[in-house]
Amino acid sequence: METIVTGDQLRIEVCYSPALFPVYYQSKNCVVVVIDVFRATSAICTAFQNGVKEIIPVATIEEAKEYKEKGYLVAAERNGEVVDGFDMGNSPFSYMGDEIRGKKVVLTTTNGTKAVERAKAADQLIIGSFLNLKAVCNFLEVSQKNVILLCAGWRDRFNLEDSLFAGAVIYSLSQNPRYTGLADSSLAAKHLYGLAKDDLNAFLASSSHRNRLKRLNLDRDINYCLQENTMDLVPIFEGNALVIHGA
Amino acid sequence: METIVTGDQLRIEVCYSPALFPVYYQSKNCVVVVIDVFRATSAICTAFQNGVKEIIPVATIEEAKEYKEKGYLVAAERNGEVVDGFDMGNSPFSYMGDEIRGKKVVLTTTNGTKAVERAKAADQLIIGSFLNLKAVCNFLEVSQKNVILLCAGWRDRFNLEDSLFAGAVIYSLSQNPRYTGLADSSLAAKHLYGLAKDDLNAFLASSSHRNRLKRLNLDRDINYCLQENTMDLVPIFEGNALVIHGA
Repeated sequence: METIVTGDQLRIEVCYSPALFPVYYQSKNCVVVVIDVFRATSAICTAFQNGVKEIIPVATIEEAKEYKEKGYLVAAERNGEVVDGFDMGNSPFSYMGDEIRGKKVVLTTTNGTKAVERAKAADQLIIGSFLNLKAVCNFLEVSQKNVILLCAGWRDRFNLEDSLFAGAVIYSLSQNPRYTGLADSSLAAKHLYGLAKDDLNAFLASSSHRNRLKRLNLDRDINYCLQENTMDLVPIFEGNALVIHGA
Repeated sequence: METIVTGDQLRIEVCYSPALFPVYYQSKNCVVVVIDVFRATSAICTAFQNGVKEIIPVATIEEAKEYKEKGYLVAAERNGEVVDGFDMGNSPFSYMGDEIRGKKVVLTTTNGTKAVERAKAADQLIIGSFLNLKAVCNFLEVSQKNVILLCAGWRDRFNLEDSLFAGAVIYSLSQNPRYTGLADSSLAAKHLYGLAKDDLNAFLASSSHRNRLKRLNLDRDINYCLQENTMDLVPIFEGNALVIHGA
């Protein structure tokens, strides 16, 4: 990690809903981290780890269909399930096979890709999940910009797992004196992660989306998405697609 | 307190910003608790405790001026300070004198009265602060309706003190089996209050609005607003004004 010279304070704020993004987004000069732990941003990281070249996030099923007609590999998820007519949803386990290596993938999900859509005008938009937590923190420290941690939530509502990931980032960055003046949203996320960090899965036992996934028999996905630092990469939005930063 | 027959689950959700209210407000059939601990809702409770008859919340300074020209007693606060040309802001200590007894007061504040404006179409809108915490909880249990705890926040951003009060309500209500299926927003607030409850003031030491008030030499107001259960009353919105419920 680079040594940062202590100077002006940088601001980290947590935006707990995509619907609040305009409130927090005051200037383009910031990094936005889009967070959808269960499961879009965990799947995106996994796809890049397994050789996907580019991911084009789209907000609607209609756009996804248009890409499919043009011959793209297209993934679509709504309400935790693969949309009829598409081959993949947002399970990370769909993004591990040889058939995706070197490919461009188009992706639409209930919450995650909508959050990307809202925030893509920012100077830098990156993708965060527990899988690439440390890589995200390193990226932010090097960028020396203000940070908005944008939780995709659930249909614009607050959710717990995305908030915990935001807290994990703050927990790490707040060791750096440039980030010590934390906004209230960041203090709250940091406290929640402090309570949860020794056993994220147990802490999330009553959370609504974990239980939604459990009902769909997606326990394996839950456990996978809650692993920390299994990959050292940062997906970044460039042009109209996500690519690996620095690749 | 009445005994509640265990039956259908009731939903409690925390709306962390007035800008998110449309996301959480799905039907009129609910109770909305407007929360602006520092200081509007603490001041409103204090005013009723000291004999004010009615409080007309208005969203803008312009409306407040119109009432003033008609001879009303008008209070206006922006950014923590009394607005020029008005006699009172939102310090609870402005609402303790004999001159307000039996009066109607018009009030506009940076965040609290705007939150009332957004939510006033709900079946029931009440005012919550630590001062009347237990009275609010009793009201909610008797109402047997779904609950939205609406944090006024700071200019539509998340704030810590309002979230803690929401957590205090949930901490109390979640003893009741009808409220056990908590939304993620409620789980988070409950956890935060659990961390803070033994010393609210210390927990808020780094929070932004507490520090904003501290810079304005409002330590006395902070300490006052963080007292729990000093008054047994619930302000409720009826017609165009707040009155004491059941008075």
